[in-house]
Amino acid sequence: MAGFPDPLKRLIDEFERLPGIGSKTAERLAFAVLRGRPEEAKVFADALVDAKKKVMSCATCSNVATSERCDVCSDASRDQGLVLVVEHPRDVVAFERTGRWRGTYHVLLGRLSPHEGAGAEALSLKALEARVAGGKVREIVLGTNPDTEGDATALAIERRLSGKVPVTRLARGLSSGGAIEYAGTEVLAEALRLRRPAIGGG
Amino acid sequence: MAGFPDPLKRLIDEFERLPGIGSKTAERLAFAVLRGRPEEAKVFADALVDAKKKVMSCATCSNVATSERCDVCSDASRDQGLVLVVEHPRDVVAFERTGRWRGTYHVLLGRLSPHEGAGAEALSLKALEARVAGGKVREIVLGTNPDTEGDATALAIERRLSGKVPVTRLARGLSSGGAIEYAGTEVLAEALRLRRPAIGGG
Repeated sequence: MAGFPDPLKRLIDEFERLPGIGSKTAERLAFAVLRGRPEEAKVFADALVDAKKKVMSCATCSNVATSERCDVCSDASRDQGLVLVVEHPRDVVAFERTGRWRGTYHVLLGRLSPHEGAGAEALSLKALEARVAGGKVREIVLGTNPDTEGDATALAIERRLSGKVPVTRLARGLSSGGAIEYAGTEVLAEALRLRRPAIGGG
Repeated sequence: MAGFPDPLKRLIDEFERLPGIGSKTAERLAFAVLRGRPEEAKVFADALVDAKKKVMSCATCSNVATSERCDVCSDASRDQGLVLVVEHPRDVVAFERTGRWRGTYHVLLGRLSPHEGAGAEALSLKALEARVAGGKVREIVLGTNPDTEGDATALAIERRLSGKVPVTRLARGLSSGGAIEYAGTEVLAEALRLRRPAIGGG
């Protein structure tokens, strides 16, 4: 025999096609499936097909959805005039967990990444501009990740929307609950640079 | 919305059930499936069900097989009198790649791991003893991994088979192609301890 039996090889190949899964990890995952019960493999298989079939992109904001509009966009109680722009559906879940955002979202489905060749055309920017052009948006909040690529993405969006709608950015500084002695140099420098009048001061 | 849509949540859960896959990795893998084409999800799903349905354990050696006997055990040209005992089907593939082993295998499907509570009863040791009792085995080669647990496993098997069949172990020492300056202390100590007469010497 030259290797694993064909059905096992095919399963290993499928795992290996996933991002960040190398050949050794793919083998480990495939053997885990073999160790499981047949019903478990079936449930996993159904979940794959089902997710691909039922989960789509919201026609308004590009968030994950199970119908034309996502849960947020189809919720009449959300303020459609406030749009929080994020990179990924995972970020929507993170903001929703706070329970503090009553506006809507716009999911870019990526970020500007010159190194990986991801340019502006890969992001859902046209759809964002169309929403702004619709005239109902009162404020765009840029909620990209606080790192180099996230900042570059935010800047690019700010430039495109400049003069068309008020654009704000998330506050930047020390993380509440963190300790100054463990904060990175960059974070401390930024907290100094962006310092604000104390309550009762200024 | 409290989180991801249900079909997406279910897929994330399925990935997270796999060993070594945390919740963040599971999310990343599920989104990779969503990015792919529907046919790709279907092929992956079929591979899961197919592998679980068609891949079984060889009745003789516990290697992965697509019928009652694995490719090696059902190959009449292989010497059934020589049995190389390994921990995992992956090790069979590694030895087969050398093209130098004309005997058969016995796959333990694990190793003695006191810390993880894996005892001798979890390994296919009874089947190995049955093969030896069959009277056709002339030599058992212990091919467990060269580490603490592999050595403990080899020792346990050696004790069980002692007096019933000749038992050998794989050679241990410097890896061919490696460099002494990068070899670990343990490896160098063992290479000294197990030193052999030079060719023409001794």
